[in-house]
Amino acid sequence: MITDDLVNELQAGRVVTDPDQMSAYCNDEHSYVTPGQPCAVVVARERDDVVAALRWATRNRVPVIPRGAGTGIVGGTAAIDGCLVLSVAKMTAIRELSAQDEIAVVEPGVINAELDKQARKHGLMYAPDPSSYETCTIGGNIATNAGGLRCVKYGVTRESVLGLEAVLADGTVIRTGRRTIKGVVGYDLTSLLVGSEGTLAVVTEATLRLRPAPKQPPVTVAAEFATVRQAAEAVFAIVRSAVGPSLLELIDRTTLKALDDWRNIGLDPATGAMLLAQADGSDAAAAAAVMAECCEAGGASVVAVSEDEAEAAELLNVRRAAFNAIERLGSCLIEDVCVPRSQLPEMFDAVAGIAEKHGVTVPTVAHAGDGNLHPVFVFDRTLPRIPDEIWAAAEEVFRAALALGGTLTGEHGVGTLKRHWLGEELGEQTLAANLAIKRALDPLGILNPGKAI
Amino acid sequence: MITDDLVNELQAGRVVTDPDQMSAYCNDEHSYVTPGQPCAVVVARERDDVVAALRWATRNRVPVIPRGAGTGIVGGTAAIDGCLVLSVAKMTAIRELSAQDEIAVVEPGVINAELDKQARKHGLMYAPDPSSYETCTIGGNIATNAGGLRCVKYGVTRESVLGLEAVLADGTVIRTGRRTIKGVVGYDLTSLLVGSEGTLAVVTEATLRLRPAPKQPPVTVAAEFATVRQAAEAVFAIVRSAVGPSLLELIDRTTLKALDDWRNIGLDPATGAMLLAQADGSDAAAAAAVMAECCEAGGASVVAVSEDEAEAAELLNVRRAAFNAIERLGSCLIEDVCVPRSQLPEMFDAVAGIAEKHGVTVPTVAHAGDGNLHPVFVFDRTLPRIPDEIWAAAEEVFRAALALGGTLTGEHGVGTLKRHWLGEELGEQTLAANLAIKRALDPLGILNPGKAI
Repeated sequence: MITDDLVNELQAGRVVTDPDQMSAYCNDEHSYVTPGQPCAVVVARERDDVVAALRWATRNRVPVIPRGAGTGIVGGTAAIDGCLVLSVAKMTAIRELSAQDEIAVVEPGVINAELDKQARKHGLMYAPDPSSYETCTIGGNIATNAGGLRCVKYGVTRESVLGLEAVLADGTVIRTGRRTIKGVVGYDLTSLLVGSEGTLAVVTEATLRLRPAPKQPPVTVAAEFATVRQAAEAVFAIVRSAVGPSLLELIDRTTLKALDDWRNIGLDPATGAMLLAQADGSDAAAAAAVMAECCEAGGASVVAVSEDEAEAAELLNVRRAAFNAIERLGSCLIEDVCVPRSQLPEMFDAVAGIAEKHGVTVPTVAHAGDGNLHPVFVFDRTLPRIPDEIWAAAEEVFRAALALGGTLTGEHGVGTLKRHWLGEELGEQTLAANLAIKRALDPLGILNPGKAI
Repeated sequence: MITDDLVNELQAGRVVTDPDQMSAYCNDEHSYVTPGQPCAVVVARERDDVVAALRWATRNRVPVIPRGAGTGIVGGTAAIDGCLVLSVAKMTAIRELSAQDEIAVVEPGVINAELDKQARKHGLMYAPDPSSYETCTIGGNIATNAGGLRCVKYGVTRESVLGLEAVLADGTVIRTGRRTIKGVVGYDLTSLLVGSEGTLAVVTEATLRLRPAPKQPPVTVAAEFATVRQAAEAVFAIVRSAVGPSLLELIDRTTLKALDDWRNIGLDPATGAMLLAQADGSDAAAAAAVMAECCEAGGASVVAVSEDEAEAAELLNVRRAAFNAIERLGSCLIEDVCVPRSQLPEMFDAVAGIAEKHGVTVPTVAHAGDGNLHPVFVFDRTLPRIPDEIWAAAEEVFRAALALGGTLTGEHGVGTLKRHWLGEELGEQTLAANLAIKRALDPLGILNPGKAI
């Protein structure tokens, strides 16, 4: 067997070849991609397991699918037939947490929320907080350049990665970046690897930037509007007011209805959209007041400002429950377009028009402060895969986003699902430059083939 | 003549071959590198000039040295014999300035300060402000990933670049990044090109992120300390206090003395170092008070807090005049190490020790809030080049920075001058990965050979 070598080279228990056991490592959460059957799964415990696995894969020309917790939703970790799945989810050490330098050095399997929890013990926080923060890994966050609610103020994952240790396809270990805030020696391979979806290297250690956690609880603004367009215009007014919200989320009527049907949130029949905003830091109250004014000036029917932590947590829980509420409606294709913030009203109009035209239910929530919308295309739960008419509607949404100066994906990645549209955004020449980079670092093309680019 | 083709392909006046005229395009400001003699200089006025020049260079295997205003100080734009110099300094259009989306789309020859000035008309600013901001170009800022005084709060150039149009060595035009705040389609070629010192592509357009300009004038704190170590420890206290200074500069005794000798700043004989800090935004007064407390607790002899704009401008002018004052002492090798901020006191001690050991005058200013020191090695003005003993001292400073977890260059770049030490920071494997990227995008190696990597 081709895998005998692999089993021999790694310690006992680190190579899985039993099909039943392997099935847990073969897909991500919501991609509706049918995975292939791997020849083996390596459950790495240390960097040298990753090195050995990649050397073996290179020697045997076996494609490798790196994975963390598999919480992605674009098929980025879907196995293919005969591949090696390489899981780093058990590399969970926080090697260093320096309050002095406000950095953490972690293995890729560390859970996002766990790092944040440890940082808070020192008055710090790990800012990027994708929806799956309680279960997703730092390695996966780096692979997808994950965003989240807080990134409207603190930036996406890339803004929190100072340096990486990573293993190239042939087993070569490289170290990118540094421990310092600034530095310009060499090309920015750190940023190149962040968001590369496991196609260039496997990250085995990350030096992350922590940030001071706000000392006071945030001030929360909740506002209800008759139309989503009004809410989107209020978002833009808030952005232009320059108060710097630490969170700025928009929930549309269809999503609110799903939440109300599930949890009875007391939805007013006249409410067409809700804005949820927060400000943190020492001038949070003043910033929240400005945001509340923007909502009132934008025609909000209800505007509530609260410094109460329990109330804020409850509102955030409503937002965080949005996908679970939507999933009760059927199977979901969760989309992720991002547009310049001035184009938010137009983009919401476009989504509504496309939904109506195709007769599809498309509840939409948005990290509105970043112009990042998640239109969710709901379809019949009994269907085995995403139906063509859903893709047709999604494609119109992609085109609308591109036409407004936007992008196909703000934070979820390209994975398997969106690869088809890649050329449309990048253009032929830029796609060719991407592929040249890919060939430079992975000449045999064994790392996550068929994904991302 | 090999250059006849070039002259024919470009419009009149865009190709310079007269040696006297060419000499203005052959070097940067302070590198003490002896430049070679180019075969021609292309003064590009539009993207297609860049495309034509690079196609010609590829066809004829002629090395190309791209340049902006030539304000660099590490020999990054030094000409080599037989090369083509490609200046983008005359591509000066601001193509778009969208207050709505807080972005500017500019050609690479736009002067940093000019963009900032135009942005301020809309209540916005362009944050990165290298010392040469009144004369340096955006293209050069991008090539070096330039920093500056404000980047302690607003980040370096990379944090302000959303997207690029760039021309590869063979004349292929690529477009990287996007107009949106977030986006994960394709590899992050934008970050890869930022800081690549003209070795991967020539930038012909940049989509830049503008930021809201603070509405109130900043509050300024000036503090004097008996020793540089005390000042460095106060910096660290300020960083840890999490108030987020918008400027945090340290000036050591030797620099203050040079300033005093030149401009009579009323230097107290007991002053060993000065800290200059600012806070902006709506909570600036509170933040400045915290910073003042940190200075007092750290043993400052004088602490002055001022909201007066004229006074603040005067203090900043003192800081900005530091290099000019130092240059009165002799020829200067301006260094640029960066260390984790907790290591600032140790790094200042190391610089002082090395200066004493080698009997060299090394006035040092620092973007202290980022851990970025500029030790300036002063040597005899009559010497034609940087003497070996200066390099020996500088090398010890590099080694000390690396030993403290730091880097060879925080913001000036590697250029010609620091290439020798590159491997020491990157290591063999990572350097090889850098070179693989270089070969992928510039297989003939014609773009700025012998620089950066």
